[in-house]
Amino acid sequence: MDDQILKGLLSSETLYSQPSVIRDLTALADKPDVLSLAGGWPAPEDFPIEEVTDIFNCLVGDYGSQMLQYGPTHGFLNLRKEIVKMLHNEGLKNLDPDEILITHGSAQGMNLCSQVFINRDDVIIVENPTYIGGIGAIQLRGGKLKGVPLDNDGLDTQFLDHLLIELTRKGVKVKGLYLVPNFQNPTGVTLSLDRRRHLIDIADTHNIVIFEDDPYFELRFEGERLPSLKCLDQNGRVIHLRSFSKTFNPGMRLGWIVADRRVIQKMITAKQFIDICTNSISQFVLLEFMRRGLLEKQIKKNIEHYRKKRDFMLEQMQKYFPEEVSWNRPTGGFFIFIYLPKGMKSADLFTAALDRNIAFINAQSFFVDGSGNNTIRLSYSQADYEVIEIVIREIGSLIKERL
Amino acid sequence: MDDQILKGLLSSETLYSQPSVIRDLTALADKPDVLSLAGGWPAPEDFPIEEVTDIFNCLVGDYGSQMLQYGPTHGFLNLRKEIVKMLHNEGLKNLDPDEILITHGSAQGMNLCSQVFINRDDVIIVENPTYIGGIGAIQLRGGKLKGVPLDNDGLDTQFLDHLLIELTRKGVKVKGLYLVPNFQNPTGVTLSLDRRRHLIDIADTHNIVIFEDDPYFELRFEGERLPSLKCLDQNGRVIHLRSFSKTFNPGMRLGWIVADRRVIQKMITAKQFIDICTNSISQFVLLEFMRRGLLEKQIKKNIEHYRKKRDFMLEQMQKYFPEEVSWNRPTGGFFIFIYLPKGMKSADLFTAALDRNIAFINAQSFFVDGSGNNTIRLSYSQADYEVIEIVIREIGSLIKERL
Repeated sequence: MDDQILKGLLSSETLYSQPSVIRDLTALADKPDVLSLAGGWPAPEDFPIEEVTDIFNCLVGDYGSQMLQYGPTHGFLNLRKEIVKMLHNEGLKNLDPDEILITHGSAQGMNLCSQVFINRDDVIIVENPTYIGGIGAIQLRGGKLKGVPLDNDGLDTQFLDHLLIELTRKGVKVKGLYLVPNFQNPTGVTLSLDRRRHLIDIADTHNIVIFEDDPYFELRFEGERLPSLKCLDQNGRVIHLRSFSKTFNPGMRLGWIVADRRVIQKMITAKQFIDICTNSISQFVLLEFMRRGLLEKQIKKNIEHYRKKRDFMLEQMQKYFPEEVSWNRPTGGFFIFIYLPKGMKSADLFTAALDRNIAFINAQSFFVDGSGNNTIRLSYSQADYEVIEIVIREIGSLIKERL
Repeated sequence: MDDQILKGLLSSETLYSQPSVIRDLTALADKPDVLSLAGGWPAPEDFPIEEVTDIFNCLVGDYGSQMLQYGPTHGFLNLRKEIVKMLHNEGLKNLDPDEILITHGSAQGMNLCSQVFINRDDVIIVENPTYIGGIGAIQLRGGKLKGVPLDNDGLDTQFLDHLLIELTRKGVKVKGLYLVPNFQNPTGVTLSLDRRRHLIDIADTHNIVIFEDDPYFELRFEGERLPSLKCLDQNGRVIHLRSFSKTFNPGMRLGWIVADRRVIQKMITAKQFIDICTNSISQFVLLEFMRRGLLEKQIKKNIEHYRKKRDFMLEQMQKYFPEEVSWNRPTGGFFIFIYLPKGMKSADLFTAALDRNIAFINAQSFFVDGSGNNTIRLSYSQADYEVIEIVIREIGSLIKERL
């Protein structure tokens, strides 16, 4: 079958689909001799492999081959109950297990949102820049993106309000808004409480759905946790997406969705035809991990670990970056976002860095309007201290050479 | 948010989506006091839980927390290489690991086919009756179904050829064909070799894609395995979907796709935004299970197990069913398909059976044209011998009462 015939058979969304730039860049940076701050994966040395092993062996004794059978599409009820308890302690109270759906990671959460809400050409608002996985999930259904800028308080809700009024006047119906409210990927910024409240008002006024993608929620290093949008939502407009990938581990592919139970029912129906059910062993082990109180301990450990690395990276940046470079101080999560000096292109810096076996993410691909060509994303989550120092020093020297 | 507002926000495919009737019926039949031949799940007593436990513990020693990290979206290369070897032994030779994609079960395989090939209103041909999961995956993308009947040699390719000619004349473009060639769910029939060849010719002539869903391939009880459609395919038209759920176990959610590498690339791009990657632990454990030669042994054990149960069920049917009932003798898989006497409705029989705490599947929901109202599907895969005898006896007596 030649290329033309194949193209004639592909779906519209596939015809022009592009692989995630981040996944590709990360693959590039994964060469053994490349020192990288590119990947945003969690640190494997923190994964609770001993606890997982112990729990697995205990459960085999109790449940045997039951652990290898299909489970309900909804996810195991006892795990959903355990999640309800955890959310209660976070401030998301009075949930019913029927308002929870267990997923193969929060990526699947957004895929289900996309399937259940988005038709081709529906307009979805996103932060500009935003997480590439969110963009990709929206585009799988042919959704169209409109960007709204963010500042140090997160998404600019004033801008959003004006945009929605303008779009309504033009007859453009906006279906929903996708955002990462805490320690956003790629910018590391967090949506302020005032803006959270404003956003909920706007969603009610304009009748839109909010896809709240919150994989870094637990990883706050300082200050008080802010209530999630789902906490503030009175009308079932918020679909709250969460992940166990950054706290428990990513290889077991576990996340969950909190939503109105009618929405959860529609998502279950879709998931029946997407992958039938979520991995049974992963769910069994996670449930026991939570019951033993190990998730809370693990989260404390993670926070400690990532906070130290953030602090170290910020110190190195202070030391090695010229004053023409600016960046933020994230209060959690994995990322620091950098603005290069005016006129300096991150694409050029990226190429020059790779020649020295140094890698980071050229953050332009996170922008939905082609801007951001002087931004880079650095992650402190995976690299060790030595690598962080070397890479920051080298980036600093590459920037200085170009000034 | 009231129902009307919510409906206004849902995607077209979601607005009218219905949960899988089979999953619902199975849930009904799962009550502890119901004796059921409804569910088509594999038999848990055969799952290799001891081997999985041993392998897991060995691997933890070797790989530690690496087993809990994200993996490549494509699936681990070593596992794809192992699958290439296995397929070589099956007769699907000279494959490259790049033509393989590891998935969360063969359900995800069909979901990726749907995403990559189907646009809303694209016509997809299916066997009538066919597997409900296949129908569901097509409908998630808004595909339209046309049924082609089957007989004891599987899909009627002559009928298909005429249908395609007629549709072409009417200006209706058919995009693809979905089928289960071996021991089909629900009918248990297998597509003959002649028809396989004919089908490949037809696909080339009419420029359509074939989605070959083959989860029961390994479970042939007697006779020679037939070459898969993918074996006969010269032009990269066949997407071959396979599963480890019926042989290894379903709870670890593993399957794979064989396709033209350009198609695999498009599927990888989609999967990046669907669930990022397949469960790492599952892949590690399966790879070692295959390397130790345990998968082959497991398949032999499965064949032995299911053949005995099929034979037993056929004996019971011979003993308890009146001669007005007809059925086939499947040469593999999990299912026997039954035609009730003329005029007898499976829906009525189903209700009456449930009153006696007996369950099976009213197979009408497998038909895409509303026919089949006198058919039922019985599965011997999960129930033990005693249950098989009781349920068959009771169904027999219910039928006799109605004659």
